[in-house]
Amino acid sequence: MHSVYRAEDVNFQVDAEALVQRLSAILPGEGLLVDDEAKRPYECDGLSAYRELPLLVALPETVEQVQAILKTCSEMHVPVVARGAGTSLSAGALPHPQGVLLSMARFNRIIDMDARRRVARVQPGVRNLAISEAAAPHGLYYAPDPSSQITCSIGGNVAENAGGVHCLKYGLTVHNVLAVTMVSMDGELLELGSEALDAPGYDLMAAVTGSEGMLGVLVEITVKLLPQPPCKEVLLAAFDDVQAAGNAVAGIIGAGIIPGGLEMMDNPAIRAAEDFVHAGYPVEAAAILICELDGHEREVLEQMDQVRTLLEGFGASRIQIAGDDAEKIRFWAGRKAAFPAVGRISPDYYCIDGTIPRKRLADVLTRMEELSKEYGLRIANVFHAGDGNLHPLILYDGNVDGEFQRTEELGGRILELCVEVGGTVTGEHGVGMEKINQMCVQFETPELDQFRALKAAFDPAGLLNPGKAIPTLNRCAEFGAMHVHKGQLPHPDIPRF
Amino acid sequence: MHSVYRAEDVNFQVDAEALVQRLSAILPGEGLLVDDEAKRPYECDGLSAYRELPLLVALPETVEQVQAILKTCSEMHVPVVARGAGTSLSAGALPHPQGVLLSMARFNRIIDMDARRRVARVQPGVRNLAISEAAAPHGLYYAPDPSSQITCSIGGNVAENAGGVHCLKYGLTVHNVLAVTMVSMDGELLELGSEALDAPGYDLMAAVTGSEGMLGVLVEITVKLLPQPPCKEVLLAAFDDVQAAGNAVAGIIGAGIIPGGLEMMDNPAIRAAEDFVHAGYPVEAAAILICELDGHEREVLEQMDQVRTLLEGFGASRIQIAGDDAEKIRFWAGRKAAFPAVGRISPDYYCIDGTIPRKRLADVLTRMEELSKEYGLRIANVFHAGDGNLHPLILYDGNVDGEFQRTEELGGRILELCVEVGGTVTGEHGVGMEKINQMCVQFETPELDQFRALKAAFDPAGLLNPGKAIPTLNRCAEFGAMHVHKGQLPHPDIPRF
Repeated sequence: MHSVYRAEDVNFQVDAEALVQRLSAILPGEGLLVDDEAKRPYECDGLSAYRELPLLVALPETVEQVQAILKTCSEMHVPVVARGAGTSLSAGALPHPQGVLLSMARFNRIIDMDARRRVARVQPGVRNLAISEAAAPHGLYYAPDPSSQITCSIGGNVAENAGGVHCLKYGLTVHNVLAVTMVSMDGELLELGSEALDAPGYDLMAAVTGSEGMLGVLVEITVKLLPQPPCKEVLLAAFDDVQAAGNAVAGIIGAGIIPGGLEMMDNPAIRAAEDFVHAGYPVEAAAILICELDGHEREVLEQMDQVRTLLEGFGASRIQIAGDDAEKIRFWAGRKAAFPAVGRISPDYYCIDGTIPRKRLADVLTRMEELSKEYGLRIANVFHAGDGNLHPLILYDGNVDGEFQRTEELGGRILELCVEVGGTVTGEHGVGMEKINQMCVQFETPELDQFRALKAAFDPAGLLNPGKAIPTLNRCAEFGAMHVHKGQLPHPDIPRF
Repeated sequence: MHSVYRAEDVNFQVDAEALVQRLSAILPGEGLLVDDEAKRPYECDGLSAYRELPLLVALPETVEQVQAILKTCSEMHVPVVARGAGTSLSAGALPHPQGVLLSMARFNRIIDMDARRRVARVQPGVRNLAISEAAAPHGLYYAPDPSSQITCSIGGNVAENAGGVHCLKYGLTVHNVLAVTMVSMDGELLELGSEALDAPGYDLMAAVTGSEGMLGVLVEITVKLLPQPPCKEVLLAAFDDVQAAGNAVAGIIGAGIIPGGLEMMDNPAIRAAEDFVHAGYPVEAAAILICELDGHEREVLEQMDQVRTLLEGFGASRIQIAGDDAEKIRFWAGRKAAFPAVGRISPDYYCIDGTIPRKRLADVLTRMEELSKEYGLRIANVFHAGDGNLHPLILYDGNVDGEFQRTEELGGRILELCVEVGGTVTGEHGVGMEKINQMCVQFETPELDQFRALKAAFDPAGLLNPGKAIPTLNRCAEFGAMHVHKGQLPHPDIPRF
């Protein structure tokens, strides 16, 4: 267990007894969990290295209950952490020990699906994949597809501005959500966004998308549905060195082709995946690219020829186009199973999430190899190459003393490397609790001040998800000091505060 | 002349002499305009019915000057209105009589154009079309194309979240801008957004896009460039009644086709355009649709067949596919010249901008006809039918006493009608000074409060563009009272405050 709240984030004075009494009146029956036993399933999200039992777990069923809970917590100055399916990989839904964990699991209805207008109105607890399943009979689907789409909920997707394999072509959550209904910390109901392309007033919906539960609690979401592409082709290319694969990615995008998906795996990831699902991957390759093209049949076939020629030019040692649907599924199966596959070859792994400019891919992979040696920890790479979103998996053993701490530090170094080459500390997993120190590396004081001012405009008392996403001045000062303490800043050219 | 500032928006106590002294030190030479004669060209923007002379006009050339001007105005509590090319149609760049009009005209450099990464870094005063012209040799272009693209500047496009004919398929400005550098009212430099798909922290870039100069002053913008589509086809369809044309629009979109552009004109607009540019439009038609399909050649040709069949099914009386490039240009020429063409048949016209759900098109056109009769004012309709963005042009004579006031009132009624059917009071022209009362119809108190809180998070003293975009509580109370005063609320089912 690894408690990461700072003292300044856990100094709330909560009258637990009075709180239980007031919330019980709002949530009759099984709606309020008080016992440790009952609260245990909520102590962590997908980043299970971070755990904390909440004071209480609330399971509302109606919008009015959400409003009443937030109003009560606001009046009693109690922190609130909202939770969807709990699949966050950055501890964004980590409970607060003095607060209410607000589970939106019971908001699981698709309220309305209008194929003609191509929109669906859904509750936040609806699973991502459930939307596409419900839209399928109309020939439609919801485009953003995080790897966790079987489990993760749309409310969490909005909170994290989730991506996925297809976001290169079809955009992130923010590009596929039209409107949201949100309850503010003081219990007011806000309708943000609109089904029209543009809405008057400030774009609060975009500000809320990706805000990691810091600005309000979503109670309804209107998403855009897209027509299923009539044709899809999948190609697998093997390379003898990683650099060539990285250059091929830049070459495809530079040629004006936007694939439905463009993914890269390095040798450790290839081997782990192949052992696990027998996708037919070349286990000797230094790297593979999986490229999916979708659209109109003639366009896809023509682009496929172009991509093949480009890949040959960039030195692919082997190119294979999936012959039928079964092979397409197999090519993707390895990629989709890469995380659990890596889980089989190491007691634990830690998934890092950063982005870099595509042209720095080869460079950064080399630097990561050096860091891997420096820390004595293996790294497997699986990533959304098309949009420069890296997912290095650091392999470690949580039972070896100090190994998780070294893993965390290595992860931090990788993120700082991303910033150094002009990238960012998160591609799609959010900052949460995990990357909050790196925010001090990513941003300078004026930007951080502006983030804090925005937070205060929604939640002046700082009760929503305290200690996450946006670091305090104190934290940045200490984090910076820590680095200086070691004798040097890792990247002295980057302003840190 | 029509002064529209409310007393509460013009109660600044500015020491003009001291201000001139301090700003002269920042802006040597011709950088500061003090004489009425020199300031006259800045007294209005594209909505010339609203005019106001600013106290001063500042023409900075460097980011440091912008920072120094804003810092000075912040310290001296002086309002600031930023201006790009001055093409706003909602008086968004209307000067403040006690403030500085900050012209960004001298920030007109394309800083960097990277064809490989498909991004351009530009200064805010660069004209929209100039970006596409500079990108053309690389086979790239900047997608959002407001009708004013020859003149309007990219800074203004970001401030208004501008759309255009192609935004149905390629998105608004917010979908095509990656990052901005902004100076806050207190002179701090903020870097918002990122070239990566997602950036950590709140999406301040999206909040700033479309914020109508209320949150900061842009000094640099990074835009996304798209590859030029290899094939474009344009089709013109005539209809004997407007309802059928409206249904055909919904039918095309419902069939899963997203045209590059899908525009509609009604009979008065067709006649005016045909008289003006001889585009070959059928002058007897009740309505025409202009549909552009773009993409891969085979896909376009196949979709063209589909669209033709759909249009026949919806009762088009005549369908014509442009035979060559000259005819394509001619089909578009009438649409693009529609506004000036209407200007030839009426002493003045007032362009309204609202959006509605596509399926309510026919309905709303009928209601507008009734309103036109009620007010005794002709209306010509030209609009982005595909995204439900209406542009009714109200024809009036500014020299007839009271006719502009009646026109304004009719415009207000049309916007309220848009809200009533589930639409919004602006599609792409912004709220500015023009539609500020209708914001009280569009939003309820919690949303307006949240807008004001966001504004305060960026500009606590309310110095940037005061009196625009977001109405004060007082204004809404009075506007509501005015409506009640008339004996009834126009739409009693819509909550007004």
